[in-house]
Amino acid sequence: MPDIYQSLMVHVRQTTALEQVAGLLGWDQETMMPRGAAAQRGEWSGAMESTLHSRRTDPKIADWLASLEGSNLSEEQAANLRHIRRSYDRNTKVPADLATEIARTTSVSQGVWAEARAADDFAAFAPTLKNVLTLRRQEAAALSEGGDLYDALLNDYEPGMTGAKLDALLGSLRDGLVDLRGRIGGSDVQIPALDFDFDDSLQMKLAHKLADVFGYDWSKGRLDKAVHPFSSGSGNDTRITTRVDVRNPFNCIYSTIHETGHSSYEQGIRQGYLLSPLGQGVSMGVHESQSRIYENQLGRSEAFCGWLYGQMRDLFGDFGVGSERAFYQIANAVGPGYIRTEADEVQYNLHVLMRFKLERALISGDLEVDDLEGAWNDQFKADFGYAVDKPSNGVLQDVHWSVGLFGYFPTYSLGNIYAGALYDKLRADVPSLDADLSRGDTAPAIGWLCQNLQQYGGLYEPSEVVERATGQAISEQPLLGYLNRKFGAIYGV
Amino acid sequence: MPDIYQSLMVHVRQTTALEQVAGLLGWDQETMMPRGAAAQRGEWSGAMESTLHSRRTDPKIADWLASLEGSNLSEEQAANLRHIRRSYDRNTKVPADLATEIARTTSVSQGVWAEARAADDFAAFAPTLKNVLTLRRQEAAALSEGGDLYDALLNDYEPGMTGAKLDALLGSLRDGLVDLRGRIGGSDVQIPALDFDFDDSLQMKLAHKLADVFGYDWSKGRLDKAVHPFSSGSGNDTRITTRVDVRNPFNCIYSTIHETGHSSYEQGIRQGYLLSPLGQGVSMGVHESQSRIYENQLGRSEAFCGWLYGQMRDLFGDFGVGSERAFYQIANAVGPGYIRTEADEVQYNLHVLMRFKLERALISGDLEVDDLEGAWNDQFKADFGYAVDKPSNGVLQDVHWSVGLFGYFPTYSLGNIYAGALYDKLRADVPSLDADLSRGDTAPAIGWLCQNLQQYGGLYEPSEVVERATGQAISEQPLLGYLNRKFGAIYGV
Repeated sequence: MPDIYQSLMVHVRQTTALEQVAGLLGWDQETMMPRGAAAQRGEWSGAMESTLHSRRTDPKIADWLASLEGSNLSEEQAANLRHIRRSYDRNTKVPADLATEIARTTSVSQGVWAEARAADDFAAFAPTLKNVLTLRRQEAAALSEGGDLYDALLNDYEPGMTGAKLDALLGSLRDGLVDLRGRIGGSDVQIPALDFDFDDSLQMKLAHKLADVFGYDWSKGRLDKAVHPFSSGSGNDTRITTRVDVRNPFNCIYSTIHETGHSSYEQGIRQGYLLSPLGQGVSMGVHESQSRIYENQLGRSEAFCGWLYGQMRDLFGDFGVGSERAFYQIANAVGPGYIRTEADEVQYNLHVLMRFKLERALISGDLEVDDLEGAWNDQFKADFGYAVDKPSNGVLQDVHWSVGLFGYFPTYSLGNIYAGALYDKLRADVPSLDADLSRGDTAPAIGWLCQNLQQYGGLYEPSEVVERATGQAISEQPLLGYLNRKFGAIYGV
Repeated sequence: MPDIYQSLMVHVRQTTALEQVAGLLGWDQETMMPRGAAAQRGEWSGAMESTLHSRRTDPKIADWLASLEGSNLSEEQAANLRHIRRSYDRNTKVPADLATEIARTTSVSQGVWAEARAADDFAAFAPTLKNVLTLRRQEAAALSEGGDLYDALLNDYEPGMTGAKLDALLGSLRDGLVDLRGRIGGSDVQIPALDFDFDDSLQMKLAHKLADVFGYDWSKGRLDKAVHPFSSGSGNDTRITTRVDVRNPFNCIYSTIHETGHSSYEQGIRQGYLLSPLGQGVSMGVHESQSRIYENQLGRSEAFCGWLYGQMRDLFGDFGVGSERAFYQIANAVGPGYIRTEADEVQYNLHVLMRFKLERALISGDLEVDDLEGAWNDQFKADFGYAVDKPSNGVLQDVHWSVGLFGYFPTYSLGNIYAGALYDKLRADVPSLDADLSRGDTAPAIGWLCQNLQQYGGLYEPSEVVERATGQAISEQPLLGYLNRKFGAIYGV
């Protein structure tokens, strides 16, 4: 039995290593690759995918699993088997032709979307989106074996989560957010905007300092610029990216802290789990809980903003903001906007929930692609109170659907819900938190997150690892409580 | 028949794509990888090697080849088949266990060498070198099937070349070089050294300009710093590196031009050959012919040095050299030195020939590793007239043997011989060459190289492609003629 487990894990470790190589290709493509190499890179990625597909569907895996399941295994062995079984079933349920067709289609559909967005022309994207949607619905049908299509897709990103569970969590979250936003809208607190040019290289210097301050281990990663910031990699090679907007330093600051959260999670997983299924963040939602608690509950806190204000005065001189309090308010201003990724903490989840509703309707067949732009615009008007001015600010703003990521959006809000719950417990366990953050000391907070969540990697299921850390069932209430306290105080409502 | 050829090429293209992915891993490791990622990277490389080995030894290849060989094929199809046959035979002749053991051993032996070099302690490296040598001799025995061991290894880097052919070419080269060096030693021309600090970032600016000037296509590559400069990649993703020594700008200048030569060769190959065996430089020797003709015959010419002097005055101001002529002499000074990679054009090949002699003796069994340091020091004293002062300046200076590269060194000298022959024909075909170079215009020269050699990639065998370009049988005489003319004029001998 130990020999069989060993054989299985040798195979899986090598597959995981190859997956990480494919991940490096993605990082390189966004940061280093010369522009003329795109087509050649497509061939490389295709060759890697083909290799990975063969390894993931190797019939030997089924034999090994059959021999091992039900036998006496340690907690970690059982967790590894659970992940391997899920991956094997997922990959063998989808016919090879369909998998190839999805890979082929989504490798070009992102480019079509990018052009349509640049031209503000949804009609130019619609035929491609129809293809992608049709293929993903076929895939969902293969995966679900008669069950709910959307749940089957969601399971790729957040194992164990279902649309029905999300309805309960997100419905109540939505009501609370709409109420809070209404009260903020009635406030007479006026928050001014920044009006200063923040030097590019000084912003990058600050970005390095912020990654430092949030515990990023430079021996296991690096920081580069990218058009759309992302983090990449696992274990001892986890890289982050950021971007710089000279007029808006919060872009660089909070992108950096957000991506540091993702990478610190990967860096914090037990070294013994390296290259095994346990050696990476357990789900998109739990990943987002780390990036968002770093970015918002810690990085946008009044205590940390006070410290950050001093750092920025040292770096940039007088940039026209007179106090820590004013700086904190500017960093947390709630205002109108079309773009999800630029939204404040109060409205961010309203953007996500809109996409969740629309993509569920697309997958179920209740909404046709031809009607998507209208449905988006109607929903946006209903949710935000003003009309979308152009498709690039509306239905074409996100890359996700163009590459077939249906079922991904709700994990953003789940991450926020998890972060809210973790923050409540963190405050209870680390009473010095505000005093620490006001000195720019995140170590106690991050130590708590690592100890209680990050180190476990894939050992527990997503909701389980959060519930173990918080001692509570998953609920939207801690997040709502946090947002009401924070923004109630900022806006006096 | 077309279907069989098609099936074979689909397989080979995917293997080539994966080889290029492995190549990117190597580039990343030397330029971007965080230091803590080394062990994890070892797992990635091992997984890629294992995947590649399976694909290269797939029995389907033997069936496809058997069906196709002897049938009516185009020149390009026949050339592809020749490469695929050579690779398949090479990879199937070596037992899998031995291949794995070589990969495992050489993945750590470079580290042992680096530590021994830092400690100037050959004895600390000797046991590891013995292992590597034993394994490579076993591999050579498997490859040669009773033939010459050294030829079998040489064939990996320079197909068709043999030790006997090298003896003829290199023996005569050696005699000519020793004679020329003797005459230079008797010259009373004194060439001063540079004494100036050349700003790091200005050197990198110059490096970008030089790559530009030598026709590097930035849409297909990029330039970064590395401890030991190298070029990497094929087709539309070919990257170069350089290094900066503030006291010696020639390090950056000629590393950049050298690596540009390697990468321009790859960039210049017919686009239709991309991802096929024809789509990469045909041998190490032909590759080195391009890097060396860019670096030496073009980059260190009096005409080009005149233009370069003006560029450097513009960039660095007065750096203490009063004329183009003086600058040209400094860039070509012949003097004492222990290190091959820093040697002048006259003595470089003497360094290489010494290694060729020693490694042949190691492979044949005439020289034991325990006697290598003594043999090196004796040979150096005999060849250069002064004693090695420490192992890091002697037997431990090159990485090659530590990673099993036996049979590689002579390709450096072959490259110089090829470059000498190509330069003779280039001068005859492009009479404006010196006038062009004196304006910093390399386009006619590089256009000639691309037209007559680079574009063919792997279509012809190494010596064949050079002979087609020059119209002459391979000979060391053009190189010797060039060196005698150039250094005779500089030193008045």
